[in-house]
Amino acid sequence: MNVDGKPHRTIWLNDDGWSVEIIDQTILPHRFETVTLRTVEDAARAIEDMLVRGAPLIGATAAYGVCLAMHEDAGDGSLQRALDRLIKTRPTAVNLRWALDEMRTLLHNRAPEDREALAYARAAEICDDDVEISKAIGSHGLALIEAVAADKADGDPVNVLTHCNAGWLATVDWGTATAPVYLAHEKGIPVHVWVDETRPRNQGAALTAWELGKHGVPHTLIADNAGGHLMQRGLVDLCIVGTDRTTASGDVANKIGTYLKALAARDNDVPFYVALPSTTIDWTLTDGFDIPIEQRSGEELSHLTGRTEAGEVVRVEVSAPGAPIRNDAFDVTPARLVSGLITERGIAEASRQGLAALFPDRTS
Amino acid sequence: MNVDGKPHRTIWLNDDGWSVEIIDQTILPHRFETVTLRTVEDAARAIEDMLVRGAPLIGATAAYGVCLAMHEDAGDGSLQRALDRLIKTRPTAVNLRWALDEMRTLLHNRAPEDREALAYARAAEICDDDVEISKAIGSHGLALIEAVAADKADGDPVNVLTHCNAGWLATVDWGTATAPVYLAHEKGIPVHVWVDETRPRNQGAALTAWELGKHGVPHTLIADNAGGHLMQRGLVDLCIVGTDRTTASGDVANKIGTYLKALAARDNDVPFYVALPSTTIDWTLTDGFDIPIEQRSGEELSHLTGRTEAGEVVRVEVSAPGAPIRNDAFDVTPARLVSGLITERGIAEASRQGLAALFPDRTS
Repeated sequence: MNVDGKPHRTIWLNDDGWSVEIIDQTILPHRFETVTLRTVEDAARAIEDMLVRGAPLIGATAAYGVCLAMHEDAGDGSLQRALDRLIKTRPTAVNLRWALDEMRTLLHNRAPEDREALAYARAAEICDDDVEISKAIGSHGLALIEAVAADKADGDPVNVLTHCNAGWLATVDWGTATAPVYLAHEKGIPVHVWVDETRPRNQGAALTAWELGKHGVPHTLIADNAGGHLMQRGLVDLCIVGTDRTTASGDVANKIGTYLKALAARDNDVPFYVALPSTTIDWTLTDGFDIPIEQRSGEELSHLTGRTEAGEVVRVEVSAPGAPIRNDAFDVTPARLVSGLITERGIAEASRQGLAALFPDRTS
Repeated sequence: MNVDGKPHRTIWLNDDGWSVEIIDQTILPHRFETVTLRTVEDAARAIEDMLVRGAPLIGATAAYGVCLAMHEDAGDGSLQRALDRLIKTRPTAVNLRWALDEMRTLLHNRAPEDREALAYARAAEICDDDVEISKAIGSHGLALIEAVAADKADGDPVNVLTHCNAGWLATVDWGTATAPVYLAHEKGIPVHVWVDETRPRNQGAALTAWELGKHGVPHTLIADNAGGHLMQRGLVDLCIVGTDRTTASGDVANKIGTYLKALAARDNDVPFYVALPSTTIDWTLTDGFDIPIEQRSGEELSHLTGRTEAGEVVRVEVSAPGAPIRNDAFDVTPARLVSGLITERGIAEASRQGLAALFPDRTS
């Protein structure tokens, strides 16, 4: 998507043909800077330190990490060390494991002299495939926005509420929850996004508001507390969020707070959709409450990073000193509250039957 | 309640017999400092600049503001100027108008030489009455906590979730939503409070966590997004929140985000109670959606005040620069989601009938 008028992906090959460029997402929205990855260690640290985040982008970065290792030394030892190093960066990310399995399968039986070229070709393909998946999700979700727009007075925007960042910054391009919005915007359909701040890590305020603003999509930042009130007042037409993991029965684990918005959507007859690449469906699970929920440091809640008026970026403590804190990163929205799952193959009913009908090849 | 072992109210008369001491709530939780009010202008600014907040405390401060005016000059002109100045400080606060009406009625037909003593006596009475109201709310709410405790294994705490600050800092002492908690704690009933951060003004993180911590009540700070998840996991026994205004039919306007917690409570069969002094019931309204909702500055969301590691208190911008922001201060929780209204007269069903039964003298 665009940053100040210039199209960007979140990861790309530099003109030298081997080094890899990423956006440093840890300093957004305060500064927009890119970082060059030249070694597998650079790639591993970029994932570990969350310069890149979002399952699809983590997978793409890991694939390029293997490329960088092959560029330096294409021997068996180097390949194994790269895979071992990269898998340890974010142990729970599904796409990380998938991307590294892809690279291992592709490379381990090939001659070292062929590996570098093969690796770069496959990494590029992984990125391009991710873009195609996002665009497919976007085109299916676009139909929902178009249907709402058809009932609006001329020029009245379709109001979409989203939580966290399932935007292009979390993927290679387009995003998942945001893909329908970007496509609608490109087609000239008036669309406006309510952006949940998304405490405690503020991905909405820092990333979603930033990327929509840079691309020129009308949006408004709100407190996480405000979505229900806006729905009560008829100011939300549609909710679209992303997901970290979806069960075979359509339960959705996503950023903490998603469940509350789904409840408000149901109470106010607002459709609540979840956008996802089918790689995030866990076909082995049928109960969302079996998904383990990561508990993270309380400092994510007690401390915030911001810019002073002088432009300095500082970290401050905002809560009562010493207060005990609990910080669950995700919650589970039961399938009964989900209007539909927007996948790259189409929109599925959030149920075992709905998913099985769209993915007969994945279920047995 | 206690601050580091020493009992405090939020407002008190100094030993000189005329100047008034308050806690500067604008610098909590970063520093605990009291401020001496010596003139009506001091009192007016304390309300305006939110050194004191919370309807009952605002009323008490206004009453003492009139006392300070009478201390300086008990003439008719001085009285009228004091009333005019104080009413302008927070135009929508119901208790402010009520307290000033009380003082006007008491003083305007009395001889100037009697006014100072009368004023101080009435202001002290207003404070003491407020404490009694809070304690009555507390004792009615205590029964709810005791009922839950009776079903718990020995030593397992009753988990109460609260939103915003309806604590002793918002009243003269004890608070409204917190009064049952403090009473349970004093009785030795194990009680633990989940404290919503309460974005955007962070009253939970800054005030509720602070006052519970200083009094020694076990508590845990959580993101506003987390309450639904905790209820799904059976970690909340009871919700108790305050209210800014309640309709005659039991609809409740409270801090933005309250509605979302009420929805989650209903979805998980968690009782959801609202604690209130009956002075906050608006007998003229029957539909909560007729309550005007204040929209406040977006800077409350984009900017935060915190302590740097060096101990300096600074204001920083945390969200994407220039992002449009909407900041509604309150939302409406419909009576159907409220398990009961805890008032100083007892617990009323959240309905016209329920309130009328408890307050036959207020309804006709």
